[in-house]
Amino acid sequence: MSLDETAVKPHDALAACLADEMEAVNRLIRERMASRHAPRIPQVTAHLVDAGGKRLRPMLTLAAAKLCGYQGPYHVHLAATVEFIHTATLLHDDVVDESARRRGRPTANLLWNNKSSVLVGDYLFSRSFQLMVEAGSIRVLGILADASATIAEGEVLQLGVAHDIRTDEGVYMRVIRGKTAALFAAAAEVGGVIAGAPEDQVRALHAYGDALGISFQIVDDLLDYWGTGATGKNTGDDFRERKLTLPVIKALTGAGDEERAFWTRVIGQGVQREGDLEQALELLNRRGAMEQTRNEALAWADRARAALEALPDDPVRDMLRDMAGYVTERIV
Amino acid sequence: MSLDETAVKPHDALAACLADEMEAVNRLIRERMASRHAPRIPQVTAHLVDAGGKRLRPMLTLAAAKLCGYQGPYHVHLAATVEFIHTATLLHDDVVDESARRRGRPTANLLWNNKSSVLVGDYLFSRSFQLMVEAGSIRVLGILADASATIAEGEVLQLGVAHDIRTDEGVYMRVIRGKTAALFAAAAEVGGVIAGAPEDQVRALHAYGDALGISFQIVDDLLDYWGTGATGKNTGDDFRERKLTLPVIKALTGAGDEERAFWTRVIGQGVQREGDLEQALELLNRRGAMEQTRNEALAWADRARAALEALPDDPVRDMLRDMAGYVTERIV
Repeated sequence: MSLDETAVKPHDALAACLADEMEAVNRLIRERMASRHAPRIPQVTAHLVDAGGKRLRPMLTLAAAKLCGYQGPYHVHLAATVEFIHTATLLHDDVVDESARRRGRPTANLLWNNKSSVLVGDYLFSRSFQLMVEAGSIRVLGILADASATIAEGEVLQLGVAHDIRTDEGVYMRVIRGKTAALFAAAAEVGGVIAGAPEDQVRALHAYGDALGISFQIVDDLLDYWGTGATGKNTGDDFRERKLTLPVIKALTGAGDEERAFWTRVIGQGVQREGDLEQALELLNRRGAMEQTRNEALAWADRARAALEALPDDPVRDMLRDMAGYVTERIV
Repeated sequence: MSLDETAVKPHDALAACLADEMEAVNRLIRERMASRHAPRIPQVTAHLVDAGGKRLRPMLTLAAAKLCGYQGPYHVHLAATVEFIHTATLLHDDVVDESARRRGRPTANLLWNNKSSVLVGDYLFSRSFQLMVEAGSIRVLGILADASATIAEGEVLQLGVAHDIRTDEGVYMRVIRGKTAALFAAAAEVGGVIAGAPEDQVRALHAYGDALGISFQIVDDLLDYWGTGATGKNTGDDFRERKLTLPVIKALTGAGDEERAFWTRVIGQGVQREGDLEQALELLNRRGAMEQTRNEALAWADRARAALEALPDDPVRDMLRDMAGYVTERIV
């Protein structure tokens, strides 16, 4: 048994520790995604919710509340809120990216249509808003309102710089803070706020979620060039969609005229030919961009772990620390 | 002067009475639609905001707060909130309806693209959420969260019953409560709540906004068959887009087999030929559907006026009463 226990993955350990609360969150999600009048809403939502996903964000809220000694019922509402916001953004993202697959299934915009994805996303966002109002904390509402604005601003920024090879690391960081880290940070922070944790702990939870989210997104962007089929990502998707992610930004730094001309053609102009992906991978390695990106992801995971120092010494804190390792485990 | 004053239109009278506050609302809207990082946001929003629109919804909030004796600054935030929610839904509506024109201009989805409209709509919704958090009232947040959910649910419902000639008046009412009346009702209600008005007055403001919004939407749907170029609506747009609006629903009630076959072809199957719109207008008149729809709009305007009885006797109340006449003036 003890051998098995040490073999338990960090994500599973946290999930097991929060099993009852997560069950309550899932119940609340199913209950609130219903609509008496518009049956298409639960159809579209269930398609996405049932497909699973790792439920990282609601787990952060539950773990933070538990770690800070919360005894009330509203961490469950806030965890469901965070998952609804996440699901709403996925629905809108798939419309914006014209995606065909998500979590191993056809996307909702493909199965129904873009209209349904836009409107059901709006519905879930409104439902998330109702859930957080029930929790009754203006401060929590402010944190989630700010996170929502950062998410939307990041998405518009990403659209504005799409295919622009002048995009630098500062803009990249702002984009991924919007698309990923803002909700991770808010998810952890509101768990502490609802528990009435001291200010330094609330700040630490925010910093932890922020760093964890940044690490998570950098790993995701790295795996798009590094991954194999086993990671669940298709190598080269970002390349084909001409996304300016960190590996490419790093490869462009100090690239000579010839290399710059290559990136301008394949990403900037979108003229891609047979063998270009292999050429891109070769350049990424030659410029050390893969290694530098990997190091950056690991450094952010370290920052996430360091932020936890301000929080109570508790098994949940150890599990949150292990989560930083879980996020980067596919690149170590 | 007094002759001129009696000639002032109800909308203009209310606008003049609320001029200072409306200026503050417009300032706040311009300030909050800015984005430091994503310049496309103010571009898209300004395109819509600068095009004008009647600003009916924020005027309802300001008028309700004034009528109930509010002295603080937050009615301005709530009025801006309501206009942001409205603008966000317009951006998403135009994507869903694939519209090409709005307020006499090309739509944002046509000028930029659907992606920008989806994401900028999300941004405005988040900004509205931040504004209402600043007002600091959980009750107000609950009212606006519920209204947002009703709006989104109504939109999805409308999508689900599109082109379905079995749609009845109950479903139609639910759809227009979502797409129009819910925000009118919430706009008026939050003005009373922020002013700390007694419960019966808050209920009356909600009932007024609800009835006014329903009347407004029925008039809009009626004018689509009745209007001329002078009303700013293109006659027959709803017909061409195969929308089941109240005139058609009423014409279908008691229609014989031949008439039903006509509506099934043009609305249900979308097979429309030269002369079909004229044929539709003839049937709408023959079945008394135009007259019945007009009477319904007038009855809801009466209900709006009646709801005001519970509110303080005040010049602002008289102006709100006149607004019910303004909404129906194009059909009397």
